[in-house]
Amino acid sequence: MRTQVGIVGAGPAGLVLARLLQRAGIDAVLLERRSRSYVESRVRAGVLEHGTAQLLDELGVGQRMRREGMVHRGIELRFGGESHRIDLAALTGKTITVYGQQEVVKDLIAARLADDLPLHFEAEVTAVDGTVLEYEQNGVRQRLECDFVAGCDGSHGVARLAVPDGALRTAEREHPYAWLGILARSPAAAEELVYAYHERGFALHSMRTPDVIRLYLQVPRDTDLAAWPDTRIWDELRTRLDLPLEEGEILERGITGMRSFAVEPMRHNRLFLAGDAAHIVPPTGAKGMNLAIADVRVLAEALTAHYRERTDELLDSYSRTCLKRVWQVQRFSNWMTTMLHRHEGDDEFGHRVQLAELEYVTTSTAAATTLAENYVGLPR
Amino acid sequence: MRTQVGIVGAGPAGLVLARLLQRAGIDAVLLERRSRSYVESRVRAGVLEHGTAQLLDELGVGQRMRREGMVHRGIELRFGGESHRIDLAALTGKTITVYGQQEVVKDLIAARLADDLPLHFEAEVTAVDGTVLEYEQNGVRQRLECDFVAGCDGSHGVARLAVPDGALRTAEREHPYAWLGILARSPAAAEELVYAYHERGFALHSMRTPDVIRLYLQVPRDTDLAAWPDTRIWDELRTRLDLPLEEGEILERGITGMRSFAVEPMRHNRLFLAGDAAHIVPPTGAKGMNLAIADVRVLAEALTAHYRERTDELLDSYSRTCLKRVWQVQRFSNWMTTMLHRHEGDDEFGHRVQLAELEYVTTSTAAATTLAENYVGLPR
Repeated sequence: MRTQVGIVGAGPAGLVLARLLQRAGIDAVLLERRSRSYVESRVRAGVLEHGTAQLLDELGVGQRMRREGMVHRGIELRFGGESHRIDLAALTGKTITVYGQQEVVKDLIAARLADDLPLHFEAEVTAVDGTVLEYEQNGVRQRLECDFVAGCDGSHGVARLAVPDGALRTAEREHPYAWLGILARSPAAAEELVYAYHERGFALHSMRTPDVIRLYLQVPRDTDLAAWPDTRIWDELRTRLDLPLEEGEILERGITGMRSFAVEPMRHNRLFLAGDAAHIVPPTGAKGMNLAIADVRVLAEALTAHYRERTDELLDSYSRTCLKRVWQVQRFSNWMTTMLHRHEGDDEFGHRVQLAELEYVTTSTAAATTLAENYVGLPR
Repeated sequence: MRTQVGIVGAGPAGLVLARLLQRAGIDAVLLERRSRSYVESRVRAGVLEHGTAQLLDELGVGQRMRREGMVHRGIELRFGGESHRIDLAALTGKTITVYGQQEVVKDLIAARLADDLPLHFEAEVTAVDGTVLEYEQNGVRQRLECDFVAGCDGSHGVARLAVPDGALRTAEREHPYAWLGILARSPAAAEELVYAYHERGFALHSMRTPDVIRLYLQVPRDTDLAAWPDTRIWDELRTRLDLPLEEGEILERGITGMRSFAVEPMRHNRLFLAGDAAHIVPPTGAKGMNLAIADVRVLAEALTAHYRERTDELLDSYSRTCLKRVWQVQRFSNWMTTMLHRHEGDDEFGHRVQLAELEYVTTSTAAATTLAENYVGLPR
């Protein structure tokens, strides 16, 4: 089998890339290790930047997002017993859309299958040999020959591992805490996302639908879920968030590590890395999916220039272009994380500076605008 | 001897306080351990915030500052081989005035002596006993009984030491580098202050007069001046600043540690601490003198309310009011310091985030405004 662009991974990055290439008349084949039902129900991010929502519209896959997604014009920061609103819309003229990553994935999968374009589930890539993808589907080994390979298969995927040792420079940071997250059938307890700094640790209130909320608690990295029965989770959330939460059924729960990671360059010969395959950001800035989609926009434009205009300038600048945004997003995610989490063992000076940062960002219009413009998404 | 307010230390804080009290009809006596010539020639800070310059005008001691000081409408940030201007005036509507701290001190001393008000040099306070100041002048021990004592005698002064152990909470941070500073008879090599981040370390170009410049190099904390002959200093400055410096006579040189320090509360009974006696900030933000003067403005208003309106509300809120600004200034000074210095042993992730911060602050109007509004001085 042959195609122009072989895409490893049918998450938001791979699916949006395929859709962009389709619009440009470039053939692509998507290979996804997991089943369709698995990727459609995997709970991940839920905040779309202004530009991400616009792109989904442009790609003709935004109808359900516009119907079911919730447009938010601000977020709340809570600390020291007070609540402060960051008015995203007033500060930037832009909004965010609360719509689960798995919903975005569902819409993109449905569109691709409706267009009868190649998208293979349970097709595990076993080797990336230059521009040849070897994969196994239904126990059968197959080969896909490509002009280019796009590695959109996440941080544990095979694409990045196919790059020889030493060809990529990595930068990373492990944060000394994790998030205990739950998905619960409860009404939202606030109209907008609430980010709380509390002496007991960070907490976040967000929602997926008007009746399903997603809540997070900062916990030590080695936390055992068994030590957190439902009542302890709800009590701790109420204490830190100071919101009248209703205890609904907990549909999902888990512990997520907080990791920052990035490779450079995001390319090796004709293999291009995008999204989590190239970089991980802690979830505090709500940037992971948005950054992945920003990468593939750059990649799609570069591939389009290659096929249409026979110029590789944009392919050659792909990594450099993406990394500018990647490091701005790393900076922002790291800043939000540092500002909002309790740092065990931090000295009095560090703690006071942290409180001053929260005070500043909620009293200075310029500082609030820095938060807002990054949260809704920096310009391309 | 008796007075209403006994002021320990005739630096900018003590002298401005005395002038503010004079205007309110409150008696004060200033006791300064050093000689007049010593305090008038001590080279320190040289950047006046917008509000500080305005206050000196209001106090009738701004004539020479307006004549000889240099109004700057921006500063330069250099990194990665490029120069970026932060347009303070356009971003905030305010400017800074470059005028040496010792010049401010000279003007205030001249005014006080012209008004024939008590200001004693070489008068060393040996004990602060409640509101009684014991001091020694010309070998004679004397007592000054006061209603209130203002400790404006710097971080090594006696005032803070007079507070019993445990009554003050301290927060501090030692930064792992120092500044090698020179004062040189050379023409300014740039029209504005130049803050340079370089892989070899931070450097700063500033000026005192059009013919005398003040230059700094980041060096390890244990640096020996003997290892830095003139040529090495000039070569290193040229490399880091990328400015056409002319090697003039070096009039002064020294190594300054970088320390952050603050006590809380800034009061003990009738003793009020102001300026360096209560807090030290690293010099990167050019905030030390400005913060000291901000403290004594609050104190003078509080003392005025005490004597004129017989209310102690402002005295009671003195520490809380000052500390809000103190921690904003600590935050800003710490941010500028961290962003502009080379951190030995920093990992790749930290280094890339630092470069992203420099990139952000010079490309986002909101981020540039946060720098500018703090640099010209946050509103009271």
